[in-house]
Amino acid sequence: MEAPEFKEFAKEMVDYIANYLENIRDRRVLPTVQPGYLRPLIPDEAPKTPESWQDVMADVERVVMPGVTHWHSPRFHAYFPTANSYPAIVADMLSGAIACIGFTWIASPACTELEVVMMDWLGKMLDLPADFLACSGGKGGGVIQGTASEATLVALLGAKAKTMQRVKEEHPDWDEATIVSKLVGYCSKQSHSSVERAGLLGGVKLRLLKADDKHSLRGEALEIAIKEDLAAGLIPFYVVATLGTTSSCAFDALDEIGPVGNKYNVWVHVDAAYAGSAFICPEYRYLMKGVETADSFNFNPHKWMLVNFDCSAMWLKDPGWVVDAFNVDPLYLKHDMQGSAPDYRHWQIPLGRRFRALKLWFVLRLYGVENLQAHIRRHCGFAKQFEGLCRADDRFEIFGEVSMGLVCFRLKGTNELNDALLKRINGRGKIHLVPSKINDTFFLRMAVCSRFTASSDMEFSWREVAAAADEVLAPQKIENGHK
Amino acid sequence: MEAPEFKEFAKEMVDYIANYLENIRDRRVLPTVQPGYLRPLIPDEAPKTPESWQDVMADVERVVMPGVTHWHSPRFHAYFPTANSYPAIVADMLSGAIACIGFTWIASPACTELEVVMMDWLGKMLDLPADFLACSGGKGGGVIQGTASEATLVALLGAKAKTMQRVKEEHPDWDEATIVSKLVGYCSKQSHSSVERAGLLGGVKLRLLKADDKHSLRGEALEIAIKEDLAAGLIPFYVVATLGTTSSCAFDALDEIGPVGNKYNVWVHVDAAYAGSAFICPEYRYLMKGVETADSFNFNPHKWMLVNFDCSAMWLKDPGWVVDAFNVDPLYLKHDMQGSAPDYRHWQIPLGRRFRALKLWFVLRLYGVENLQAHIRRHCGFAKQFEGLCRADDRFEIFGEVSMGLVCFRLKGTNELNDALLKRINGRGKIHLVPSKINDTFFLRMAVCSRFTASSDMEFSWREVAAAADEVLAPQKIENGHK
Repeated sequence: MEAPEFKEFAKEMVDYIANYLENIRDRRVLPTVQPGYLRPLIPDEAPKTPESWQDVMADVERVVMPGVTHWHSPRFHAYFPTANSYPAIVADMLSGAIACIGFTWIASPACTELEVVMMDWLGKMLDLPADFLACSGGKGGGVIQGTASEATLVALLGAKAKTMQRVKEEHPDWDEATIVSKLVGYCSKQSHSSVERAGLLGGVKLRLLKADDKHSLRGEALEIAIKEDLAAGLIPFYVVATLGTTSSCAFDALDEIGPVGNKYNVWVHVDAAYAGSAFICPEYRYLMKGVETADSFNFNPHKWMLVNFDCSAMWLKDPGWVVDAFNVDPLYLKHDMQGSAPDYRHWQIPLGRRFRALKLWFVLRLYGVENLQAHIRRHCGFAKQFEGLCRADDRFEIFGEVSMGLVCFRLKGTNELNDALLKRINGRGKIHLVPSKINDTFFLRMAVCSRFTASSDMEFSWREVAAAADEVLAPQKIENGHK
Repeated sequence: MEAPEFKEFAKEMVDYIANYLENIRDRRVLPTVQPGYLRPLIPDEAPKTPESWQDVMADVERVVMPGVTHWHSPRFHAYFPTANSYPAIVADMLSGAIACIGFTWIASPACTELEVVMMDWLGKMLDLPADFLACSGGKGGGVIQGTASEATLVALLGAKAKTMQRVKEEHPDWDEATIVSKLVGYCSKQSHSSVERAGLLGGVKLRLLKADDKHSLRGEALEIAIKEDLAAGLIPFYVVATLGTTSSCAFDALDEIGPVGNKYNVWVHVDAAYAGSAFICPEYRYLMKGVETADSFNFNPHKWMLVNFDCSAMWLKDPGWVVDAFNVDPLYLKHDMQGSAPDYRHWQIPLGRRFRALKLWFVLRLYGVENLQAHIRRHCGFAKQFEGLCRADDRFEIFGEVSMGLVCFRLKGTNELNDALLKRINGRGKIHLVPSKINDTFFLRMAVCSRFTASSDMEFSWREVAAAADEVLAPQKIENGHK
């Protein structure tokens, strides 16, 4: 494909994208296809000779769209939001054209340097402590990871390296395997599954601690666990405090966990994957009280801050532990400027990396901080609106407290009833939700996800929930009537 | 930013991209900026209110481009190529607009299913054994990873899980820490640094074995190491065979390594990150002889097959070992269709994933297999052309054999002389190369990287090398004359 054709094709795609997103509300949010739907729609093999871009374009609607779950529809309330915005899409186009691999500074200085400065911009927007920022002139700094799960793993591996070194000095006679077998990390039972998975990947024990009745991990629970493990000869080394859990958007008590972690030489990692974006609004920052005690902090602008996936922002007070843990330095990657700017390949699991800072730069400049704050506040307001509608229907109850853009709710009654409600809602296909369960209570999660969401969408979604409840409760009533 | 503005901005960016790429030869391949160049060029903080897209666009040339190393310039000969093509850029635009997170089938069925089928298309293009392909109806299948380093780590973790289970059955009295401490993996000293790093990340020993005089790891060397380690009470579990090393594009003897691995129950992983693309041409497939013995196979279409980063293709004969090693299954990710299609989140390190199969689909259809083969053959031809120019100048020698699109060469003389040559070449700024070193011999690597490369570019690059050699050798001659 040559440039003139590319221009035609890409501009057609621009129009297609605008049309897709502006009219996304009209598409069925959850597809009706069955597993294996796609294979029969396309040939068994790649073509030998080129097809026309018009044919490919036509197949987007024929082959792809019938199987797409429309994450950016205002009818999509599953999981948490993933970001999508016009400035980020354009920035990624440029990133695709430059297509540099930013593993070292020299491999494309702009790629590294824009990332350093964007992570400072972003850190300032959240009012992070200065020692997380590169501009403070200390050791700290930020990096864009692909996902929060990678950030959790990177922090765990940094914590592991740091503790290994300390314990080796204290016990020169212990071998590595012995030390690793004694390491123990902590998180809440409510933390994301990726935290448990980081323990699996890192080959260390991770204890899931019980949260309090507000689903929040408290300092006392952590300290009790640490003391137990120390008494048992284990070595506590890592704790993850989640700010905004996936199940119910609960906040661990970072202002309690942090000091306990610091006291026992345990690396404190903050996973604020979803809720972290809210800290650009001063009124939500009380929820990250204690952040100055953290060793690493992570949130995903690619969730709630309109920067397309992947853009997971991570700050480290002392990246040295991560850099040294991962550092293998072959000659073909050495360069003369080594040491004067971060070589981000040492900060992450993969070696290669895209020019992701561009989309942060474009989004921050083309929205401005005030519009991003307004976006967060609007979503929180929609959650309140949905809560109000739910509370006004006495068949329903709110589970826990409504937090950020998430409403956890259920029909008063059994888990089975609520499971039936969820299946009915998703089966009707007009909105999409996923469930969760805490302490054996099954509930539905309504996450506000789309930047196109309006107040009328909340009313629509509520009417769908209420209508599904009518259907689910109707036979029950009859059944009860027969008794 | 609303849709009408997006259309203007994105179409302007399309023109910018075409203009950038079509005229990339005219830019200085390696920037002259010093570390820290970018920070003074932009404000200290994100703007409160939106800027115009025209201002942002203008800053691309002012702020970004002066710091870009132009990987797609025909003057760029460093590392290995990274891919860039118009069809892939357009596909990524669509991926950015759909912006689904394909962690489960239901999260966007098209995202998973197109990937399954594209990995079959690609596997057939390489003529991989049927048991790697999903369409064979067995356990095997492919997945798109972000990078080859992740694929190496994923395979290592799968191998670890598989061996742990076997050894636990054989020795029910051994605890996990004991078993892990006995595990030992293998690769060539010539394998990529990311293999060693995978060992670090996975917390297992990895032995770097000596290659033969053609820089190829042989079966005998592996078998000797395995026997030594078994005799010492260790547990061999993993070997990486590299097809196309980074230093010199050497090929490990997979047809020898594979049978040895199979014999000793050692997981055989093939890392063909760069050279794997060449296997779409039948005449190069002899270099992957023995592939039927492998447990996993990986190459990067994002290197040499015109699919933009990130697109690292990995096939597993039995993904179960990886899936089970990583599987933590919370309720909010469960769905009714589980088991009937792969939930790719279990196949990889991160949880989230982009719709990357689109760019594979677009590239395969809009180039067609024949044009992709022609691209590979053209690059191999350019390497031969450069080799010829180099051999015709008796100041130079070729290091090893010219393989694929890589020429390893040096001035006859000391390492210091060749280091001076490299610095002179990069300092002149017209072309960019990186060095490597094998067995204490320092040499220069000339990789053919750009899809815009023409025969005249090879002549240009050679003239640059020769001119730099004139400069480096000139004072030496004078010095010698004075003696």
